[in-house]
Amino acid sequence: MNGKLYAIGTGPGAADLITVRGARILGQLNVLYAPAGRKGGDSLSLSIVREYLGAATRVKSRHFPMSQDADEKGMVWDTVAQEMAADVEQGLQVGFITLGDAMLYSTWVFLLARLRGRVPIDIIPGVTSFACIAARAQLPLAMESQSLAVMACTDDDSALETALLSHDCIVLMKVYGRFARIQQLLRRLGLIQHALLMANASLPDEICFTLLDNVPPDRVLPYFSTVVVNKSWRAAGNDLDLCLTFNQGIDQ
Amino acid sequence: MNGKLYAIGTGPGAADLITVRGARILGQLNVLYAPAGRKGGDSLSLSIVREYLGAATRVKSRHFPMSQDADEKGMVWDTVAQEMAADVEQGLQVGFITLGDAMLYSTWVFLLARLRGRVPIDIIPGVTSFACIAARAQLPLAMESQSLAVMACTDDDSALETALLSHDCIVLMKVYGRFARIQQLLRRLGLIQHALLMANASLPDEICFTLLDNVPPDRVLPYFSTVVVNKSWRAAGNDLDLCLTFNQGIDQ
Repeated sequence: MNGKLYAIGTGPGAADLITVRGARILGQLNVLYAPAGRKGGDSLSLSIVREYLGAATRVKSRHFPMSQDADEKGMVWDTVAQEMAADVEQGLQVGFITLGDAMLYSTWVFLLARLRGRVPIDIIPGVTSFACIAARAQLPLAMESQSLAVMACTDDDSALETALLSHDCIVLMKVYGRFARIQQLLRRLGLIQHALLMANASLPDEICFTLLDNVPPDRVLPYFSTVVVNKSWRAAGNDLDLCLTFNQGIDQ
Repeated sequence: MNGKLYAIGTGPGAADLITVRGARILGQLNVLYAPAGRKGGDSLSLSIVREYLGAATRVKSRHFPMSQDADEKGMVWDTVAQEMAADVEQGLQVGFITLGDAMLYSTWVFLLARLRGRVPIDIIPGVTSFACIAARAQLPLAMESQSLAVMACTDDDSALETALLSHDCIVLMKVYGRFARIQQLLRRLGLIQHALLMANASLPDEICFTLLDNVPPDRVLPYFSTVVVNKSWRAAGNDLDLCLTFNQGIDQ
């Protein structure tokens, strides 16, 4: 059997929100590379897949630094990509796991950039965190001719503001450590009543705030906190209730 | 056992790209409502889930018209929502399936708007078409501080143009019947070399064009055709090759 590298999106957190294909491939791997050491998120990805791994699968945890030093990070990616390529060239079935989807805000892409064309690669998509948040909160993302923007809060305020003004639904990722700024921006744009914050969606410690105006700006939030804004919906008086103001357009 | 309504995203097309949870719930349903009659897409969603259905699951296909008449559509949604509620109130486990994810461009949201708070609802998220396209084409969506916009081509040109200019990655859904206009827009904005078109991703009849400049504007495309633009990538001379120009930033 020829070696192959599989990048597998594990989905948002609950083990059974991985795809059937992802679960099956995990059971056939010789080696699984798992990212380690990012504020709990990476042990999360490994915990999601453990029940699916074959008895003989060897787990190689690899630390990807969150350094601001591009050279340092590049060297780590080079090293891990080289290790993976060597395993595949030996004929092994090699996996790499990534929370959510593999092609959206994932270290996987830096490995892909180094391995594309060098070894056979198969990427298994996953459920994104924001699809899970929408499902859990029963808050739609976009309908008909509406649009959705997915932004990282590491982006600058003007880019976030443009997106918040231009789109019907806006997902703000990487809120951790930036909530006060996002809260202020949403207030200034008159959108705070259309926003909710969810962390750890689908996990036992899932939390959801639908009245962001009432959340203390210095409130410590979980690392995987995401804000979703949908202009067609509005938080109601009750923290767990959302008013439906969705306009039933006719365009398909 | 109390009745419940499950909305299940089936994922992009291949049967094993549904979630493990979705597959399990399908096996426990008394009744499955399946949309029917939209240019092949709906028989697709039913074909994805058939292998997971319990032997006793009753399938109720329901036709949702693509009419421009909002009243006509509203009446159909009212009727189906009423049927579903009656089934749940009888204590049945009731499912509704939707291609891709249930909260993004899905009829499900119109049913949710009628049933939210009336019956117990559980929404199972699914892999979106564009996550699957990114995986199949090995084309990233967004990284680090980059942003992603998901647009419907039924939106007007100025909204599409703003999104194409503002974001790093842009997904254009609902391209069917609108390719010539999109091709022209991408040419005018100098983005056509950064775009690819994929249809039926993960299915046996998957097609991918990476040189959109060469596709005849009147080319008949499959109904589920999607264009993905990523400014960090560029189509190379070979139809199946993509040049990596991804700028390895340092922001996380």
